[in-house]
Amino acid sequence: MAAQIPEKQWAQVIEKTGGEIQYKQIPVQKPASDEVLVNIKYSGVCHTDLHAWMGDWPLATKLPLVGGHEGAGVVVAVGEHVDDVKIGDHVGIKWLNGSCLSCDFCQQSDEPLCPKPLLSGYTVDGTFQQYAIGKAAHVARIPKELPLDAIAPILCAGITVYKGLKESGAKPGQWVAVVGAGGGLGSLALQYAKAMGLRTIAIDTGDEKAKMCTEKLGAEAFVDFAKSSNVVKDVQAATPDGLGPHAVLLVAVNEKPFQQAAEYVRPRGTVICIGLPAGAYLKAPVFESVIKMITIRGSYVGNRKDSAEAIDFFARGLVNAPYKVVGLSELKAVYDKMKKGEIAGRYVLDTSK
Amino acid sequence: MAAQIPEKQWAQVIEKTGGEIQYKQIPVQKPASDEVLVNIKYSGVCHTDLHAWMGDWPLATKLPLVGGHEGAGVVVAVGEHVDDVKIGDHVGIKWLNGSCLSCDFCQQSDEPLCPKPLLSGYTVDGTFQQYAIGKAAHVARIPKELPLDAIAPILCAGITVYKGLKESGAKPGQWVAVVGAGGGLGSLALQYAKAMGLRTIAIDTGDEKAKMCTEKLGAEAFVDFAKSSNVVKDVQAATPDGLGPHAVLLVAVNEKPFQQAAEYVRPRGTVICIGLPAGAYLKAPVFESVIKMITIRGSYVGNRKDSAEAIDFFARGLVNAPYKVVGLSELKAVYDKMKKGEIAGRYVLDTSK
Amino acid sequence: MAAQIPEKQWAQVIEKTGGEIQYKQIPVQKPASDEVLVNIKYSGVCHTDLHAWMGDWPLATKLPLVGGHEGAGVVVAVGEHVDDVKIGDHVGIKWLNGSCLSCDFCQQSDEPLCPKPLLSGYTVDGTFQQYAIGKAAHVARIPKELPLDAIAPILCAGITVYKGLKESGAKPGQWVAVVGAGGGLGSLALQYAKAMGLRTIAIDTGDEKAKMCTEKLGAEAFVDFAKSSNVVKDVQAATPDGLGPHAVLLVAVNEKPFQQAAEYVRPRGTVICIGLPAGAYLKAPVFESVIKMITIRGSYVGNRKDSAEAIDFFARGLVNAPYKVVGLSELKAVYDKMKKGEIAGRYVLDTSK
Amino acid sequence: MAAQIPEKQWAQVIEKTGGEIQYKQIPVQKPASDEVLVNIKYSGVCHTDLHAWMGDWPLATKLPLVGGHEGAGVVVAVGEHVDDVKIGDHVGIKWLNGSCLSCDFCQQSDEPLCPKPLLSGYTVDGTFQQYAIGKAAHVARIPKELPLDAIAPILCAGITVYKGLKESGAKPGQWVAVVGAGGGLGSLALQYAKAMGLRTIAIDTGDEKAKMCTEKLGAEAFVDFAKSSNVVKDVQAATPDGLGPHAVLLVAVNEKPFQQAAEYVRPRGTVICIGLPAGAYLKAPVFESVIKMITIRGSYVGNRKDSAEAIDFFARGLVNAPYKVVGLSELKAVYDKMKKGEIAGRYVLDTSK
Repeated sequence: MAAQIPEKQWAQVIEKTGGEIQYKQIPVQKPASDEVLVNIKYSGVCHTDLHAWMGDWPLATKLPLVGGHEGAGVVVAVGEHVDDVKIGDHVGIKWLNGSCLSCDFCQQSDEPLCPKPLLSGYTVDGTFQQYAIGKAAHVARIPKELPLDAIAPILCAGITVYKGLKESGAKPGQWVAVVGAGGGLGSLALQYAKAMGLRTIAIDTGDEKAKMCTEKLGAEAFVDFAKSSNVVKDVQAATPDGLGPHAVLLVAVNEKPFQQAAEYVRPRGTVICIGLPAGAYLKAPVFESVIKMITIRGSYVGNRKDSAEAIDFFARGLVNAPYKVVGLSELKAVYDKMKKGEIAGRYVLDTSK
Repeated sequence: MAAQIPEKQWAQVIEKTGGEIQYKQIPVQKPASDEVLVNIKYSGVCHTDLHAWMGDWPLATKLPLVGGHEGAGVVVAVGEHVDDVKIGDHVGIKWLNGSCLSCDFCQQSDEPLCPKPLLSGYTVDGTFQQYAIGKAAHVARIPKELPLDAIAPILCAGITVYKGLKESGAKPGQWVAVVGAGGGLGSLALQYAKAMGLRTIAIDTGDEKAKMCTEKLGAEAFVDFAKSSNVVKDVQAATPDGLGPHAVLLVAVNEKPFQQAAEYVRPRGTVICIGLPAGAYLKAPVFESVIKMITIRGSYVGNRKDSAEAIDFFARGLVNAPYKVVGLSELKAVYDKMKKGEIAGRYVLDTSK
Repeated sequence: MAAQIPEKQWAQVIEKTGGEIQYKQIPVQKPASDEVLVNIKYSGVCHTDLHAWMGDWPLATKLPLVGGHEGAGVVVAVGEHVDDVKIGDHVGIKWLNGSCLSCDFCQQSDEPLCPKPLLSGYTVDGTFQQYAIGKAAHVARIPKELPLDAIAPILCAGITVYKGLKESGAKPGQWVAVVGAGGGLGSLALQYAKAMGLRTIAIDTGDEKAKMCTEKLGAEAFVDFAKSSNVVKDVQAATPDGLGPHAVLLVAVNEKPFQQAAEYVRPRGTVICIGLPAGAYLKAPVFESVIKMITIRGSYVGNRKDSAEAIDFFARGLVNAPYKVVGLSELKAVYDKMKKGEIAGRYVLDTSK
Repeated sequence: MAAQIPEKQWAQVIEKTGGEIQYKQIPVQKPASDEVLVNIKYSGVCHTDLHAWMGDWPLATKLPLVGGHEGAGVVVAVGEHVDDVKIGDHVGIKWLNGSCLSCDFCQQSDEPLCPKPLLSGYTVDGTFQQYAIGKAAHVARIPKELPLDAIAPILCAGITVYKGLKESGAKPGQWVAVVGAGGGLGSLALQYAKAMGLRTIAIDTGDEKAKMCTEKLGAEAFVDFAKSSNVVKDVQAATPDGLGPHAVLLVAVNEKPFQQAAEYVRPRGTVICIGLPAGAYLKAPVFESVIKMITIRGSYVGNRKDSAEAIDFFARGLVNAPYKVVGLSELKAVYDKMKKGEIAGRYVLDTSK
């Protein structure tokens, strides 16, 4: 089958942080003994990719860099010691491209906390190319009947919000407020929550989002933070006993919503922070936090098991991520829109164009 | 036995917030059907009592007020429906004097979160008097062989740090850093932690405290925050793999130690806030908190079960709280010392003087 | 309102174990200070009632005895210290009529394990009468919009299977096998499981039950234990990876299904026993149980919190229990059918007839 | 360094199940890319080795077979892709020699449940030879200051009981009964339990064992099952409130002790089965198990994390396993004693003799 793998391929490459993105041909790599080579068919574009390009975070990226970490495709070559992934399998390449599988964290299924992680589109080349490398133990298994474009956004956004919901400890029948419910992560969070037996309060702004959240995404209440004269009170009032939601999912943390969340969350409740805005701080009053015994927890990306579960919910038709397909060559235009905040839903790149 | 109960008793009374404390005679109350009357022998003095007097917190106290919530004594009368506490039993009256036992929180053993709590020395009269009332379901059972003066500080300080350690989720063999280790709460925390199979890093300042923590209280390392040029690094270096402690107990939260704790705690670790400084804020960088998946949790006082367990550790001789006994009449002088920060260990009042 | 309470009422009374059941008039009791008097409108009939009458269990009943522990009605009088239940409230009287609220178990929300329980229709008079007594802290709160006949079976059967599902530890997206899925408890279990985001395999026999389980009650697979040549293999094959369900709910334990459950449950899975057949034994091979690290757990009735949650799922329209209403006077005929195994669904008694 | 590795080595080899054990020279193997070659210095002898030889279990062994799975030694060669274990490191080869690290169970840190395990001395050659192969990701890391003979028994017996204690869910201050407390596993269990802050009741027979358990191993009570007229009552009486231990560890399961354990364990308590007697059954009365909500759980060997923790407790001097060193050539004699039940403590083989 090796004959089908070309020597050269199209990719989007960054030579220096914040510099030009170049759409050009580069060599196709070969998988090491524990890796697979994946013919990426589609790759989602995430805010993280923009952060990586711009150097917004305290970790340096590899350079030159091929970004992207929501890639879905077909395995075209496997390393000599790989025996549980086969050529022809459909797989996903995620943010966590690989981990050591031996450290204290990997031993506890917390691979995302491995001190020696390989990060797709950050410390190793990612999925904005036609052929990408992934560690065999880490590529997500995708059932063949699923469309590879539709699943791309699940591989990062979906898994991440699902993980956040798990970390919240909320149980079937309990209430979760989702802050930023109308956005890409938020709308997935509402759907996962419903599939998990949770009841949701969507927090966002605008009538269109209100309608989408309550009529399509399963939210039982909507609080418009721009129109509400008292967000804390309104969120609490949305729960039958007025004590507030058992958990809050902050998919785009910034300081104001965070402090509000600490206020309206139910005593013993949990506030989960998922977003990664550069330079922001969690902040909550000590007195109320102690008296109410609230928990504030950062939730990063899912581990391999979380990933498999999140994909399974998608495979069962319980979650849908709206997306728009454009060619890989059009990445620059997608970033331009992203910078202007003009994106609703996810952009997915077709690597054949 | 009713004949032994006097009509009048000595008490320390506050007529208005921040006003004079008066040592005077007041009537002895009678227990309602679900209450007991306790002849308080000894009562510890806690910072909370000072906060109550001064009105430092956003909750108003009852007025006039008899403070105190670490009272140990002997039951002298029981309400008509009380059948599991007997006259002659030794019991403790704690901060949580009573709760509804029916609400959502009481149903889940989170009595401290009951929205209708009775708080000793705050919303009901406390233990700075010779005869105090407690709800039968809530008084702590004290084995008769234990000295009533020594156990007084356990009834608030001991239970609170024990609860905090439980809430931290730290498991036998794991590391806990205690910030403020040399103080009253901190020194109890070190001992409880050791009895629970945990390994401790004491954080405080001064050679005397260093010696006490490592030689008497079981800490395996001491970090002097005043001398250290890099507290974060030093705390992490105290754990064998350099990744930092699994949990941090902040017994006197203020903003700087809090931010440091969020930095040196191990990935997936938990920072527990116990102290209640007026107006302080928890603050932690979003990016690192998410990437490290840390948990920040407020821990309030223990429930009835925590209390029984904390007393049991004390009864087994595994924890000791240094204390000094003075007469109930000397409360004012104790507060004066407390305001000046001159107290090491706990003051315990003898109600017979 | 007291004027509305009659002195006499109709009840079904047993004078001695296994003796005649008499439908006759007896006095209406008065609530003690912590009790409420409930005008029972409807009461479900449970197998336990039959066991109580027949003396099948190693615990003796009170005599004479009014059975019944699934009573739904309206509060008509409250004891002097009751302040969170009001006259006119709709409430349910459950198997656990009352508990001490002070012991080690009550302190941990395990009221059903209280060593001094009051058991409706067993150690105290139950709900086969028009006016029954319940401890205020224990009566289930029923929203007024819910029909009192339909909710009766939820008060025992519903809560019990919901509790069992919680005890199983199964998480949304995981698989649960329900043994006896077509019966009263089983059909409720399938519905609760679905509402909790779980996927179910129904195990029972007959085409009618197969149809009901998969088409109406949400089961994704049905295994007919009478037709299957290899139940263990068929149940495992019903899960996508062939490793078997994460949990098994045995609603009518007897030895054979139990041993099978230990075999087909997934490694690390949990087998929950709910039924109480007299004299039966759990039995599982040590070698396989250890190697697979399986958990076998007995699950009894729910605590107050479980009860409130189970009622909430019902209130949201997510579970339905088929039932048939007959007059209280017809209890004997219901027992006759029960003995012959002729009951499908629940019988609910209308106390006005 | 490869020059130091000989071509031939001494080993104890079984050609067929139940056949002769031969002490002879065999070739030294070479590690594959993800393996290490370990110069075994000492290897413990476990009952499992005898079961493997005799074919007592329903799983077939490899043949010819070198037994042994408690080997401690020095790494002398590493495969080309191994980078976290170095030549010269001290490591242990355990029962679980390797697992796939990719399956559903490995993904959840349940490597012992991997459906494709490599088992030392069972499905791959073990540690009754001078040079043994282990998967790099699975060899236990041993600090260099620890004696390799003393640690050998920890590598199976120690880790196994430690895992069992963790699985029991018992918390610091709670009670655990250890059945078979005076044996090899039992005496380790008592020590681990104490180090974890647990209180223990030793169950075994004989004055010598009674003395050892209570005076040396930290047990707070001893119940002699041969002398006691009522084991259930005596075990319960050993706990202060008479309700029995929170957990029971059965290190040598057979039917009678098992049924007793289900009776004396505290309501909500957990019975952990560790031993693997061929053909035995767990058996418990359904009625009492349900009413008491007890949990029965099989506990197999530890995962990598459990192993590291168990070794850490040993490294801190908190547990000691009595053992006797004999030459590798004397294995046959050790088995003879084992068959006769004449072994107290562990036999450890010195591979140089």
